[in-house]
Amino acid sequence: MIQKSDDKTNNRIKKIYVDGPKGIKVPFKEISVASQEEPIRIYDTTGPENDDVINGLPDVRQEWILQRGEYKDVQISYKANPSTSDPDLPLPKKGRRILEGIGNVSQMHYARQNIITEEMEYIAIRENMEAEFVRKEVAEGRAIIPANINHPELEPMIIGRNFLVKVNSNIGNSAILSSIEEEVEKLQWSLEWTADTLMDLSTGKNIHETREWIIRNSPIPIGTVPIYQALEKVNGVVEDLTYEIFKQTLIEQCEQGVDYFTIHAGVKLEYVPMTAKRVTGIVSRGGSIMAKWCLSHHKENFLYTNFEDICLLLKKYDVSFSLGDGLRPGSTADANDEAQFGELKTLGELTKIAWKHDVQVMIEGPGHVTMDKIKENMELQLEYCDEAPFYTLGPLTTDFAPGYDHITSAIGAAMIGWFGCAMLCYVTPKEHLGLPDKEDVKQGMIAYRIAAHAADLAKGHPGANLRDNALSQARFDFQWEDQFNLSLDPGIARKYHDETLPADGAKVAHFCSMCGPKFCSMKISQDVRDYAAQKEIEEGDAIQSGLEEKAKEFKQSGAEIYVEQKE
Amino acid sequence: MIQKSDDKTNNRIKKIYVDGPKGIKVPFKEISVASQEEPIRIYDTTGPENDDVINGLPDVRQEWILQRGEYKDVQISYKANPSTSDPDLPLPKKGRRILEGIGNVSQMHYARQNIITEEMEYIAIRENMEAEFVRKEVAEGRAIIPANINHPELEPMIIGRNFLVKVNSNIGNSAILSSIEEEVEKLQWSLEWTADTLMDLSTGKNIHETREWIIRNSPIPIGTVPIYQALEKVNGVVEDLTYEIFKQTLIEQCEQGVDYFTIHAGVKLEYVPMTAKRVTGIVSRGGSIMAKWCLSHHKENFLYTNFEDICLLLKKYDVSFSLGDGLRPGSTADANDEAQFGELKTLGELTKIAWKHDVQVMIEGPGHVTMDKIKENMELQLEYCDEAPFYTLGPLTTDFAPGYDHITSAIGAAMIGWFGCAMLCYVTPKEHLGLPDKEDVKQGMIAYRIAAHAADLAKGHPGANLRDNALSQARFDFQWEDQFNLSLDPGIARKYHDETLPADGAKVAHFCSMCGPKFCSMKISQDVRDYAAQKEIEEGDAIQSGLEEKAKEFKQSGAEIYVEQKE
Repeated sequence: MIQKSDDKTNNRIKKIYVDGPKGIKVPFKEISVASQEEPIRIYDTTGPENDDVINGLPDVRQEWILQRGEYKDVQISYKANPSTSDPDLPLPKKGRRILEGIGNVSQMHYARQNIITEEMEYIAIRENMEAEFVRKEVAEGRAIIPANINHPELEPMIIGRNFLVKVNSNIGNSAILSSIEEEVEKLQWSLEWTADTLMDLSTGKNIHETREWIIRNSPIPIGTVPIYQALEKVNGVVEDLTYEIFKQTLIEQCEQGVDYFTIHAGVKLEYVPMTAKRVTGIVSRGGSIMAKWCLSHHKENFLYTNFEDICLLLKKYDVSFSLGDGLRPGSTADANDEAQFGELKTLGELTKIAWKHDVQVMIEGPGHVTMDKIKENMELQLEYCDEAPFYTLGPLTTDFAPGYDHITSAIGAAMIGWFGCAMLCYVTPKEHLGLPDKEDVKQGMIAYRIAAHAADLAKGHPGANLRDNALSQARFDFQWEDQFNLSLDPGIARKYHDETLPADGAKVAHFCSMCGPKFCSMKISQDVRDYAAQKEIEEGDAIQSGLEEKAKEFKQSGAEIYVEQKE
Repeated sequence: MIQKSDDKTNNRIKKIYVDGPKGIKVPFKEISVASQEEPIRIYDTTGPENDDVINGLPDVRQEWILQRGEYKDVQISYKANPSTSDPDLPLPKKGRRILEGIGNVSQMHYARQNIITEEMEYIAIRENMEAEFVRKEVAEGRAIIPANINHPELEPMIIGRNFLVKVNSNIGNSAILSSIEEEVEKLQWSLEWTADTLMDLSTGKNIHETREWIIRNSPIPIGTVPIYQALEKVNGVVEDLTYEIFKQTLIEQCEQGVDYFTIHAGVKLEYVPMTAKRVTGIVSRGGSIMAKWCLSHHKENFLYTNFEDICLLLKKYDVSFSLGDGLRPGSTADANDEAQFGELKTLGELTKIAWKHDVQVMIEGPGHVTMDKIKENMELQLEYCDEAPFYTLGPLTTDFAPGYDHITSAIGAAMIGWFGCAMLCYVTPKEHLGLPDKEDVKQGMIAYRIAAHAADLAKGHPGANLRDNALSQARFDFQWEDQFNLSLDPGIARKYHDETLPADGAKVAHFCSMCGPKFCSMKISQDVRDYAAQKEIEEGDAIQSGLEEKAKEFKQSGAEIYVEQKE
């Protein structure tokens, strides 16, 4: 059942594929440890080996997609703005097939017809759940499988609160900095650090081309905020935006294979003046663009008025909605106000419209929220949006630590994940200050994987604690190599250990640098345990039977328990 | 009332002293910002300028102490173990006066006689509370003022859940590494990064001398775990420990000026076998030492049996108990088990005994606890220990990220702080892996100051949000210098900003590198606000009055809102 692939790191960590029905092969990492026979198996998002990005990744889903639906082949509907695009740029996978569904091809549509798709089978293995449970959660809107038919490279995953908590990584070039090559590198770096989905937030030159490179090389779902590109198409003049230009952009991105769109359809005209008295007004880019459009035309948001038309489009490609929280608070001072919750209610209305068309929906959430106000966000979201998955940015629990907002927000993210948030949008140390580089992407991902995993543990997600327990066992057993291998970041764990005790002998020593050889509490605990086991003393017995004699024995036999320091 | 001292960083951040009654001068940092007339005032732990550590800090408390109590002068009761001490080491403040109280000189004792001490006045100003409230909290045991009469250099502070949440930093040399000089540097580095108290956990050579250097140079309370030094005095042989040797060590440290002692008096013999089936047994060093002693002698813990005698000693110096949680869980698998909560109940009994002698008490807590089990810890602690302040190590919310345990634990620390924990013991990135260096101390302190502040905000502590709101305002106003100055780590905030936009002009630009000049949501929000204000449109009015005309005006007047990028 299991094929072992080449060793990627060391001979105790392997990438394996588990075979499922219909030829499905689901990737995992396996870590062998001394304390148990079966290796620890870990969810793996790194994707297939990918040495040449111009070829992109293999099309693992293409057959499944073609066999179950009807399609027409189309040409890409790309109308570049010449001022922001370079037509001579090479593109990966030239001549790839581009599909448009005839009728509804969404996972929700299949799920509601009681069809278990290959994607659902795949996810069932990944999450260690029944495929029927996956189908039911998708059918009822509690989970989504973002999986555009034009993204065949995707390794399917699910976002819903009855599954593992997911983490989204953001990348994107801007008008100021950053090239396509750098963005693809950031994608791969995000995968290395366990990103479940990735948003391309590019706003600068070559938006279309950057996205094409990213999607063709991404085994995880890609999200975008299409209004950014639509705005480029009208040269940045918000007032000139129209639904037609926006829709054209959506079609282009549906054809490219974007898996979910952030659409700020809840920024209704009536909510905009509610933000005037806020400390930080509107901080969502998309939200502020739509607010400005509404005010300058004095008309209702065209994303709201055309929402049903957007649904008709998205169901032909199975693009999921990520309904944007354009009025999310940008400071803890503005958290949970009427503008924010007004918009959330509207997102709930829109969810019902999308579901009428079997279009998958998740709901975006804040932002900046002190700990005492986090739970209300989760509760109202579940109530207003009929349990559609929630996808929050943090929230940051204080505003006073720019440079460390991966930490201020990991606190809030862990809590809301525990309360039921399905996906956490990461925040890097550069948030509010600058564009993240590779190291920032890593630090953001690490903080958020911690938050997501802490939430899985708190929810009691089945099996989530296996890795923790194996690591704790390895710690107790002084199995340093196992400790490193089971760590979220084995390289750092090893490096920190070696800074104090570099010699190889220290990796097998029964003590560590914190306490030195004399003070090892773990060693003493082992003595306590050995003693209890040897003497068959069960809880309480040691006291009641007044074991003076046994105490003497222990003193004689186990008195010198310390290993000497070899360095 | 306010004297401005020299500028330490730049001309908008100043250290000031606020005058209180009886000649008291309380330090604060003041940060001037563009958005308001009054500067933002911040709690300051950095202490007086200290250029020559051999002279130590000035004795700010000496007069208060001498005036209110009766004392005898004593010689230090130091009996070094020649194998672990170097008699030729120089010591700071040679010939300083050493006091022993005649009768009870504890802050709790004064508080219960309705006396408001200078320390309480000082704290009232620091915390912006009434001095009478401070006294009452101390009298009732809900808060402690760790303040040994032999630590006159101390700037008084309070630990209790109705005050700001505090952070403890740990340092200490071990058998393997680190010198006295390095430890004093780590103290000063901890102060720089806002430590409220510091524990010297040294276990290696020169324990006494290291501690003397630290205390004489510390404006914050110093805690220790005296069993470590007692064990050195019996050459590391646990079985040879006696209460007499331990008490002699306590006296030595009382005379040196240690402000609080971690004492593992709750590790009763009956609880020890309960740890045998744990994944990670006993992980507290002090706890495992006492467990081993109990088992090998098959006698009750001598700290438990002699607890009242220890109270009689501590009240003569006003040393506070930090009742150690020797059986805290060392992995999330072991959290909230019967050993842990059995010990907690015993700590509650001991609290009542200490209070009978007007000795101040706080209670130490875990450790490794998943989020769903944190609240139970706080609730049981309040119940069992009659609201004595709780002081926890994290807790770590997952075990799978060694190298990042400052983050895994900041999540738990923030939550338990919100629930009522009075002080958080920091965890550095090196936890479980090695000894922290200066950078680790900084990273640990930053993560924990974030946790403590997030807790203060969630508790709605009066005025805690002033700094956050000023920073958010500065962010909205593009007052970059104010943003940097108000930040927890101004240097990092500035560095991260400048990595993307280094030019001086960018510090006044009305955009930043994340969005570039075209997409600034803050700028658009300002337009929304200006528009709303100018037209006197209040919430809702914009919609109801159908302002097509106003929309046109806005389009004409405010259409070009973007500033051009100057770089």
